[in-house]
Amino acid sequence: MTISLYAASVPVFKQMLEGLDAILVKAEEYAAARNIEPGVLLQSRLFPDMLQMLRQVQIACDFARGVSARLAGLEVPKFDDSEQSFADLRELIKKTLAFIDGIKPSQIDGQENREIVLRPGTPKEKKLTGQSYLLSYGLPQFFFHITTAYGILRHNGLEVGKRDYMGQY
Amino acid sequence: MTISLYAASVPVFKQMLEGLDAILVKAEEYAAARNIEPGVLLQSRLFPDMLQMLRQVQIACDFARGVSARLAGLEVPKFDDSEQSFADLRELIKKTLAFIDGIKPSQIDGQENREIVLRPGTPKEKKLTGQSYLLSYGLPQFFFHITTAYGILRHNGLEVGKRDYMGQY
Repeated sequence: MTISLYAASVPVFKQMLEGLDAILVKAEEYAAARNIEPGVLLQSRLFPDMLQMLRQVQIACDFARGVSARLAGLEVPKFDDSEQSFADLRELIKKTLAFIDGIKPSQIDGQENREIVLRPGTPKEKKLTGQSYLLSYGLPQFFFHITTAYGILRHNGLEVGKRDYMGQY
Repeated sequence: MTISLYAASVPVFKQMLEGLDAILVKAEEYAAARNIEPGVLLQSRLFPDMLQMLRQVQIACDFARGVSARLAGLEVPKFDDSEQSFADLRELIKKTLAFIDGIKPSQIDGQENREIVLRPGTPKEKKLTGQSYLLSYGLPQFFFHITTAYGILRHNGLEVGKRDYMGQY
């Protein structure tokens, strides 16, 4: 037996994005309860040349959509990155979940050897199979941004724990 | 076609741990160059009730060994968590890589439906298949600690980037 490419992608993105959504609810409540301007949390970074929390969430969503779409051979949906509030980020997660939920297992399974080209036409162009693209590139990138969004909020005092990060499994 | 449980576990752990090892080399050099006591970086946290960098590395290694061993039906090797320096952590990563490199694909492939019990005998006991254990539990946990170790070092001014985190792929 083996596992399916779908099982290693869409349901993983879903679990973690739903966890992140619940963390954002707590973060917004925390900001209100402690009189913290929401923008302070949204714009917080772990270091000046790292991306802020809001961008970490946007990029996590980008990877969830982009990786799922590429594996399925679909056009990667264009989003405008116009989010500015917790409500906007939650709406973004909702739209991201709706997009990936619309992909059927049969559209991803069997695409293990599909050629996927990273940064096409640039000196850093890299060709990967669908399997390597997911396991060696997509998942590490996705988890990076989910965890960094969490880390920024923890660094700012939000009382959440690993259980919140893990989502429902 | 499908992907193998081995491909989604050992090589992923290996890629990320090798990346982390290279980051630790840079962190140790950075501490020396800037006259930072290495223990300051090793004991740094993103928030007082989060674990320090050294523990993040230990736990990432724990998950790499534990998840690989459980999937293969091997006894989870006991390590004593006695690391105190960058050299100790690099040695720990080396031993962890040696352990997981010793596991053959044939020992993990086919174990997708093996029952794995989390927190056995406790009220939080949870039974998962090998596949769910890896995708819904093991990988999210592993990436959490790799990314948080990276985030702590970035927060302390270490000049590394996503490329270092990603390792070789």
